Amino acid sequence: MISLGLLLAAAAGIPAQEETYRDPGMKTIVQVAIVCGDIEATSKRWANLLGVAQPKITLTRPGREVKVTYRGRPSEGRVKLAFIRMGQVVLELMEPVGGDTSWKEYLDKHGEGVQHIGFQVTDLEKTVATLKSLGMPELHRGRYDNDNGTYVYFDSQPSLGVTVELLHSDPPAKRE
Amino acid sequence: MISLGLLLAAAAGIPAQEETYRDPGMKTIVQVAIVCGDIEATSKRWANLLGVAQPKITLTRPGREVKVTYRGRPSEGRVKLAFIRMGQVVLELMEPVGGDTSWKEYLDKHGEGVQHIGFQVTDLEKTVATLKSLGMPELHRGRYDNDNGTYVYFDSQPSLGVTVELLHSDPPAKRE
Repeated sequence: MISLGLLLAAAAGIPAQEETYRDPGMKTIVQVAIVCGDIEATSKRWANLLGVAQPKITLTRPGREVKVTYRGRPSEGRVKLAFIRMGQVVLELMEPVGGDTSWKEYLDKHGEGVQHIGFQVTDLEKTVATLKSLGMPELHRGRYDNDNGTYVYFDSQPSLGVTVELLHSDPPAKRE
Repeated sequence: MISLGLLLAAAAGIPAQEETYRDPGMKTIVQVAIVCGDIEATSKRWANLLGVAQPKITLTRPGREVKVTYRGRPSEGRVKLAFIRMGQVVLELMEPVGGDTSWKEYLDKHGEGVQHIGFQVTDLEKTVATLKSLGMPELHRGRYDNDNGTYVYFDSQPSLGVTVELLHSDPPAKRE
């Protein structure tokens, strides 16, 4: 369908431009991720504060196995992960392990802190294009450790004050 | 009611200690707050990314009027605020204005970023006591600008990787 905006643009002789795509998943934050230096100690303190069991800590497979790229290049970076569900939001704790990643960069530069906030989108590549068109290049990308989805981080700190992550689960048909 | 723990402690001659209080409000993150240097520009970029109207920007009353304390002392600090609701979570944008506050300290030290995550609690002082008992002293406190609630920040960055904020609305009877 041609939008009124496109018709008006055509009538005024302005080059037509498709409206920017905005995924419904951008309406809710689903993840708040903290990079830390010692996930064992930090996850224990969070569990103690919240009165929940200490979450399981896992280590992702080597970067090449989960197709990690960082600033456009393959990376061997890995990360220790722990998750605590808090309603709509999952609190993610991350301890970088080896290799260049945005997790390691954040920890080296800022120390411990909230490294990114995550959104679960339905159309990953359209949303990637939207962020790029708004001046936020892709920074870091990888497959989920169980290979059923993709995450992409953007260099959005200068624009938005924080790194934005898009999370995208493979549609069931595409899963191997 | 006396807990089994207290009875066992008494039997063993250990000083009795009440179980640590944990507020039901600690189970869900309700606020993610970004400190920025130019709230006008940052809020415009967020609104553009999310496809929503630019939020209204307000400036809090002077620190003494909203009883701001920072590291135990009165502060004249103020802050420009903008809020974008994203499901359970409110994204809060904050631009510090004058005076010593934890907002200004974060911006001076780290640059723009997620300065705190917020929890809406039902028993403020019991939860303040819990955080203190877990080694997280109170850092910054104030009344809401419309004087119907209180917020408290804790020096929790070294323990949890982020500053925790407790939000507490006055019970209706106590409102003036």
